[in-house]
Amino acid sequence: MSGGAHAPLPPGATAPDNEAAASHLFERHRSGQQVFDGRLLDVRCDQVVLADGTPASREYVVHPGAAVVVPILDDGRLVMERQFRYPVGRVMLEFPAGKLDAGEPPLQCARRELAEETGYRAREWAVAGRMHNAMAYSTEVIHVLFARGLSAGERALDAGELIDLALLHEHELDAAAADGTLTDAKTLVALLWLQRWRAGAWKLHWVTGE
Amino acid sequence: MSGGAHAPLPPGATAPDNEAAASHLFERHRSGQQVFDGRLLDVRCDQVVLADGTPASREYVVHPGAAVVVPILDDGRLVMERQFRYPVGRVMLEFPAGKLDAGEPPLQCARRELAEETGYRAREWAVAGRMHNAMAYSTEVIHVLFARGLSAGERALDAGELIDLALLHEHELDAAAADGTLTDAKTLVALLWLQRWRAGAWKLHWVTGE
Repeated sequence: MSGGAHAPLPPGATAPDNEAAASHLFERHRSGQQVFDGRLLDVRCDQVVLADGTPASREYVVHPGAAVVVPILDDGRLVMERQFRYPVGRVMLEFPAGKLDAGEPPLQCARRELAEETGYRAREWAVAGRMHNAMAYSTEVIHVLFARGLSAGERALDAGELIDLALLHEHELDAAAADGTLTDAKTLVALLWLQRWRAGAWKLHWVTGE
Repeated sequence: MSGGAHAPLPPGATAPDNEAAASHLFERHRSGQQVFDGRLLDVRCDQVVLADGTPASREYVVHPGAAVVVPILDDGRLVMERQFRYPVGRVMLEFPAGKLDAGEPPLQCARRELAEETGYRAREWAVAGRMHNAMAYSTEVIHVLFARGLSAGERALDAGELIDLALLHEHELDAAAADGTLTDAKTLVALLWLQRWRAGAWKLHWVTGE
């Protein structure tokens, strides 16, 4: 293997928990440059060396990360959104979500996005887990949080942010996933968390605080 | 609203099934250009007009789509992969998956990727559903398929494709999702499909054929 032990890790890297067992799969950063710097997208192209010594290039989007919230009303219904998503050309049913500001903890982002997009504030929060949603070409990680003890308030949408609210029962969400009308990956993963938590199989640790 | 009724739809668009109810959320394409043309990534920037008349720009990746396979062995174990994903800097546990070739039907892609990456061929296939995994900035859609009646054969990995195989029981996959070691969104959505199908809640329509 030609990669040095102290070669820099890629931008999205944290210490892999399975490093010892999987070092034969690793890729080492050699050089890199930004190839597009847009209003939204930061696109990079890096030269890397595979564990077997093969050189390769890797193109990817640098993303700040995001948080998605499962907001549960006292009557059990879920606070959701409908929003036009231009790249896929359709209105999508989603849980409230948004990008992390620089250095922003996921819980703070979740609280902010829930309030801005829906007007709801939550008495209790739980951090469930996280997902990598486009890891072949993006550093993005989406944190999944739960919110309950909700109280309604004023929304604060950004200019040009057009979002409808929808209150759905869990069985309606499940049916929309089954029949193919719900296709947003982060919302489907959030539904998995919701169902496994309701079943008592996966645990949530709730904390109190606006 | 200033958008014309016959303005072109964005690249990833198919006829929305909720057009009548949601036209107040639509965005109309005005002009666009390619801003990066790499080996892997095709990045565009379009000028659009929101439903309320506000102009905006939209940056996104044009993606050919992908297929992910849930391959079930006769003993119930699942055929999975471990692969280093450079943008997130770690080895990921995933179901076998790959990008659609131009014009390739999802089932054909799934059959090809399963054979190439794992060596397994399947006697029965089912198309489960699909997900949009990064719809804020990518046209990508990932089709979810199931395969059973598996027989082992030769793999045909591309040069530089370093993939370990792993055979997991469903309860191991569930535990890995719960404890945060499994974070790949398409694999988590596939797990949701697997659990809802096993529970008899979601239906799969199996077809026979290599």
